[in-house]
Order: sequence, then structure tokens, then C-alpha cells
Amino acid sequence: MAQAAEPPSGTRDFLADEVRRREAAFSAVRDVFERYGFDPLITPAFERIEVLTGKYGDEGDKLVFKILRRGEHEATGEADLALRYDLTVPLARVVSTYGSQLPSPYKRYAIGPVWRADRPGKGRFREFTQCDIDIVGSPSEMADAEIVSAVNDGILALGVEDFTFEVNSRQALFGLLEAYRVPAELGGQVLITLDKLDKLSPEKVAAELLERGLALETADSLVGDLSAGDEGRIRDRLDGSEQGKRGLAEVDRVLELTAGLPTGRVVFTPRMVRGLDYYTGAIFEVTAAGYPGSIASGGRYDGLVASLGGPDLPACGGSIGLERILSMRDAAEVTPGGLDVAITVLGAEADVAKLAAELRLSGLRVGVYLGTSGKLAKQLKWANTQNAAFTLLYGPQEQVAGEVIVRDMSTGEQTRVPFGDVAAHLHIRR
Amino acid sequence: MAQAAEPPSGTRDFLADEVRRREAAFSAVRDVFERYGFDPLITPAFERIEVLTGKYGDEGDKLVFKILRRGEHEATGEADLALRYDLTVPLARVVSTYGSQLPSPYKRYAIGPVWRADRPGKGRFREFTQCDIDIVGSPSEMADAEIVSAVNDGILALGVEDFTFEVNSRQALFGLLEAYRVPAELGGQVLITLDKLDKLSPEKVAAELLERGLALETADSLVGDLSAGDEGRIRDRLDGSEQGKRGLAEVDRVLELTAGLPTGRVVFTPRMVRGLDYYTGAIFEVTAAGYPGSIASGGRYDGLVASLGGPDLPACGGSIGLERILSMRDAAEVTPGGLDVAITVLGAEADVAKLAAELRLSGLRVGVYLGTSGKLAKQLKWANTQNAAFTLLYGPQEQVAGEVIVRDMSTGEQTRVPFGDVAAHLHIRR
Repeated sequence: MAQAAEPPSGTRDFLADEVRRREAAFSAVRDVFERYGFDPLITPAFERIEVLTGKYGDEGDKLVFKILRRGEHEATGEADLALRYDLTVPLARVVSTYGSQLPSPYKRYAIGPVWRADRPGKGRFREFTQCDIDIVGSPSEMADAEIVSAVNDGILALGVEDFTFEVNSRQALFGLLEAYRVPAELGGQVLITLDKLDKLSPEKVAAELLERGLALETADSLVGDLSAGDEGRIRDRLDGSEQGKRGLAEVDRVLELTAGLPTGRVVFTPRMVRGLDYYTGAIFEVTAAGYPGSIASGGRYDGLVASLGGPDLPACGGSIGLERILSMRDAAEVTPGGLDVAITVLGAEADVAKLAAELRLSGLRVGVYLGTSGKLAKQLKWANTQNAAFTLLYGPQEQVAGEVIVRDMSTGEQTRVPFGDVAAHLHIRR
Repeated sequence: MAQAAEPPSGTRDFLADEVRRREAAFSAVRDVFERYGFDPLITPAFERIEVLTGKYGDEGDKLVFKILRRGEHEATGEADLALRYDLTVPLARVVSTYGSQLPSPYKRYAIGPVWRADRPGKGRFREFTQCDIDIVGSPSEMADAEIVSAVNDGILALGVEDFTFEVNSRQALFGLLEAYRVPAELGGQVLITLDKLDKLSPEKVAAELLERGLALETADSLVGDLSAGDEGRIRDRLDGSEQGKRGLAEVDRVLELTAGLPTGRVVFTPRMVRGLDYYTGAIFEVTAAGYPGSIASGGRYDGLVASLGGPDLPACGGSIGLERILSMRDAAEVTPGGLDVAITVLGAEADVAKLAAELRLSGLRVGVYLGTSGKLAKQLKWANTQNAAFTLLYGPQEQVAGEVIVRDMSTGEQTRVPFGDVAAHLHIRR
């Protein structure tokens, strides 16, 4: 019965080292979120299909994995369930489901897989892990600042050190359009183009603005001011617009409340636009030396929970690009999962089983030879492949003497130890 | 946009306490498996549909959740992927996929969700967590004994203390049929009926055997010998059959190699039949005081990996009924996830943010008030709902004095502490 041996396109099997590496990363981030008083939430892999459809736009809807109805309904070819596409829609559902049973505000973190039928590619998977924190029910800018701080600590816990939060606000962006007299109908497109100033030259960005129909002098002054990095000039301009003023206040509040972070970690970045439409207040994106694109992002989205079917509550949140960070980090950093002790089996199996049990009880990671060879050389070779720190040799002769031979696998040195003293001996030498 | 608020039928949302309880259990079991030198494995939630179909019988196939093809193919109503139904078929696939890249023997553990479109009911879910260990590639009875010991330690780690491994062997069962001259065509049905001796009276079991067509005296002697618990008599009978003799040897080897466990933990149980057909050697089921049915099971299934599409390797394994054990354990056993410190916000927000950051850095779990009320009483009420051990009061007056008021939430006692000493003060008092 032959079968396709590869996992499905766009998915991955995680073998031992990779599981340990990922779990260590997840656990480090979880510890940070717990310290911030976020509560864990785990929802099912799938939701009723009506909970998911219409939430991600036409393009998104096409990428949802739908589950066929079962039994007699299978033949209809209809779907009634779908794999979750992100962790935000399930959050909105949970807020509807449990309402006042949840703490208020509800601070939750979720680290788990989501599924998207995207075309698989380098670093783009159909099953990948998202890592989200959200605070639902607080309008306070303290909440925005908590998100920034928690994301900051989470990134540090993942071993990334050189990174920057680019902070802006939707209102500041609208204010920018107003202050520079960008025609309303061009606004959205102009913002998208301006956001490219982190990748393209000012000339190219200005050219694109002209293409989009912006007047030459408007394009020149916008690009000139934004690319000059003269924050004072932009601030002055924003101050001349009501929306701009409110936006600046939001940004400044986040800067003030995260002032405890290292200087330069959080910076006002007037050209920064988050791709998604649902943000209503402060927004941020995190860029890091050596990483393409952003490694985290988030912001305030007061209308989102309601638009996803939940109650109308203010909310803000952030997401750490765990997969992106993991893919860039050196796989060699991981602690190898080697054995503390390998035990050969040269007869006297019942004694070996007892010895293994005793050593495991003492907390050691112990493997017993389970192959078919009775040859010591072959068993030592096996112990080597297990990265064992020590190997115990124990056969009929040692059984008679009541001793175990302890072999230090790094030096090859062998010591005879009384049968009952092996655990103590190993714990001292480890 | 109203939506069905409940999670899909047969699935569950896990809120904070439940996630913590489950994660603590998973982690305890993982630690045990790691000590035994098992390697973790995580495979995708879905497999290609051809990997799953035909592996679980007609009834099982109907319970597989199938995923619709996407894009232009969606309209065909066909499925090309399916959610995993257990952790064993993915293991067989992984053994095919990675072959010699895996350690030999390959000892792996997997703790993760599986999906079955069973009719939901009390304790029966459509998404539930399985917990499996398997050793692929070892014909040694040391491997069988390792599985029993690891399952034993896993169950202990879950807090269950009073339990028994009922051990038998497929060969001993066939030997039993031979020894008691049960007609070959009745064999399977007779075994299924005999296995009910743990629930039904000997009379009822004998009556069912007669119904199935067994001769009166055969039924009487089988039921009589098995229910008398006279192991010696059964052993004598088995010794008269070649298959029975081999089966007894398998059982005795497992008993010998697990002799280090408490007396009575592992017992030969000649009537015990595992429901599934694929076992080839020693088999076991674990029963526990206060738990209905079995809480763990396993055995040797040398042909299984090949029949599931993998290479032809000997294998044995075990499964702990995590969900069953969790559902019976008292939910109150969990450490509540309360805050170490709640901080009120009565102005001076930037200082509060710094204080929170410092306390979190020191490892404390800290929540900041994110509501809209400026009233102390309301904020203290919030701190109470967070099960906070301490609450910090800090407003403009304290800011001027450079002090923080630390309130012990169990006694109501308040202490003034210099702003910079709060972390040290709390760590001493905690």
C-alpha cells in the first residue's frame, strides 16, 4: 500500500529538534504574556463556516479551507465548517459566547496554528503558527502601551535584540492627507505609495504619486518632508489639522507610556501605514536588523470585534511574526535533545529495566538499547547516535560483581560503580 | 452581524483556567516521555485524503473530516485533504517519509488534537487530544516493557495513583481458543464476549456465549476458569497449546521486565481482549479505581506500520486517555492564574508603565488597571477579580512623595514603600 510520503503541500512535519526549538520559543513568549497578566485561550481548529465567511474579503474567503458535510450530506459537496484563518475571528466569537464570564477588559494571548490555502512558497505555509495578544474592552491608551511593551518583551524573549517599533496613527495619516491637501478620492492610494518610502527612493515614490494623479507640488512636498526625516516639520503640519492633532496626541501618548524602553526603540514614523483597513487608533510595525519586512505589528481597532460578529467593544492588539523570526534564527542555537544515559543490553534485562526506572525517577533522560545486536561495539555506536553523555555497560559478569561500568562518552573513561550507587554517581558527575 | 456564538458541535473553547490545567497535564506527561528518551513529533492537522482513507474500516472512514478542494475545484464537491483521525497513521507516514533520517529504533511521542465526526455526547468530542508513544523498529520485549513503564509513569504524573495494567497477548488469546476447543469460526465473537467478564456476571457471559453458538460445556469451563481467577489453571491449559505457550512467554517477559513496579501493578489477565485487530504480541489495558473503562492501552503491532503505508517494521506503543483522566480530575486542583500584583491607575500613567515593566522584568505577573473609572474603590474591585496578591496604589500624591502604597489583598494591610524598592519589597513578602 504505497502512499504519498510527503506531508500535504505547504505543511511541515516537525521532528524532534525542530519541535524542541519551536516549543522553547513558544514557551518563552508565553512566559512574557503571562507576566503581563494575559490569559491563554485555545479555540477549536474549525469554526462553523458562517463564522468565517465574509470576514476576510473575497481574496481571503478563497483561501479558507472548508470542511465537507458528513454522512448522507457528503454527496451535496457542501461545507458546514472551516479551518480557522486567523486567531482574531475566533476571539470575537469567544467574546460573544462568554460575554460577562470573561474578565473585563479581556486580555488574552493565543499561540496556535492557522490554515490558509495560499500558494506555498519560501517562508509561506498553509499551516503556520500565529502569536497574538489582544485587549478587548479597554479604550485606555495604557492598553495600547501594554501591547507595545508585551510585544517588545516577547521579541526580546525570542532572541532578537536590534529592532524598532514604528508608531503612527490612522488619525495622523488622515491628518497628513488633510494637511497636504491631498484630494479625498486619492487618499488611500497616496498612503499606500507613501508607505513604500522605506524601500524605494524618494524619486520613485514621487513618480508613483504623480502616476496616481497627485499634483506635482503636493507630491514633492509630501515626499520631501517625509523622506527628510524632519519630524518637527511634519508635526507642525499635522498640528494644523484637527485629525492630525488628535493623531499626534495618540502617538505621543504611546511614546510617553513606553518611555521606559531603550531610546530609539519606539519612534513616530509618519509614513507608516498598516495594510489592513480596520485600525482606528495608534498602529505599529516592528522592523529588525537582518529581517525583511516586519516581525510584529498591531494597533487599535475599536470597531473590529463588532464587525466580526462580536459585541461593540474597544480593542487593541498585536501579533508577533513567530514563524518569520524562527525561520531566520540559527537552527544550531537549540539545545540538542541527547540522552543523559544510554544503557546497553548484554543480558540481565530485568536488572537493566530496574536501573533505567531508577535513573529516570531521579530525573535523568535514559535510553535503553532496543536493537537486536548482542555486540558491545554496535551498541556503543547506537549510544553515540543518541548523543549520550554516559553509557552504562552491564552484562552477566557485572551482574555477578554487583557493579555497573559507567563510560564517559566524551573521554571514553570507564568507572566501575556499585549497582545501587549509579544514580548518585551520575548526578555528581553531570 | 449576528453569529452562532457556540463553538461547533462537539468542540470546546478552553478559557484560561482550563488551558492552564490541560497544559500542566500535557507538560507533566511530556517530561516523563522525555526522560524515557522519546522524541516529540508534530505533524500537520491534515493529510492527503488517500493517506487516511481505507485505514479505519468503513465505520471509521465515515468519521473522517474531509476538506473540500479549493478555487475552481471547489464546485466539484470533492475532497483532497482530511483532518487526522489519530496519531498513528501520521506516524506511519513519517516513518515512510524520513526513513533512515530517523533514529533506529524510532521512539516518538505525540500529544495533539485529532478530529472525528462522532456523534457528540458526554465525554465524547469531535476534537480531542490524544497522547501516544510508539517504538518503531524494535522487536525486543524490552521495548514492550518500556512502553508499559512509560505509560505507568505518565499516569502517575497525571495524579492517578490506584491503577492496574491488565496484560495479555494475542497469541495467548488464540491459545485459549485452541486449548478450550472453541470452533475457529466462533473465535472472534467468543473473545469479544469473554472480555465482558469485567462488567457482566459469569452467568450472563455464559448465556451470551451459548447464544453465539458455543457448546454448553465449553462455555461453562471457559467462563468458570476465567472468572475463578485461578491463573494457574489457565496457565496449565495454555501450556497445552503451541500458540498459548508462545503467548504466555510474551506475557511473562513483560511481567519480568516490569517487576520493578509496585506489586499488583501489572497482572496477567487472560480474558482481556483489545478491541482492535492489529495487535500481534503483548497487549495491555489500564483500569483505575473510580474511572469507567480503561485509562490507557497499547501493545505490539508488528504489521501495522506496513499496513498503514509505511515500511515493514516491528512496532509497539501505548496511548494514555488524557481527556478521560482530565475529565475525571477535580478542576479545583489547578493553581489559579491570579496576578501577583495589580496596579491602580490614578494619574501618573507613565510612572505606572515603568513600574509595571520593572516588576515584570523581575518575574512577577502584573496587571495594570485598563478601565475607565478614576475611582479607587472600583479599581480595587477589579484587583479583587484578578485574584491579585498585592495591589499598588499610586497617584499624584504618592508621585510627589516618591512612594508607592502596597496593599496586601489578603489582610488589607497597606505599607508605603519607596518607588525604587517595590520589586525587592514584593519579592521578600511573596
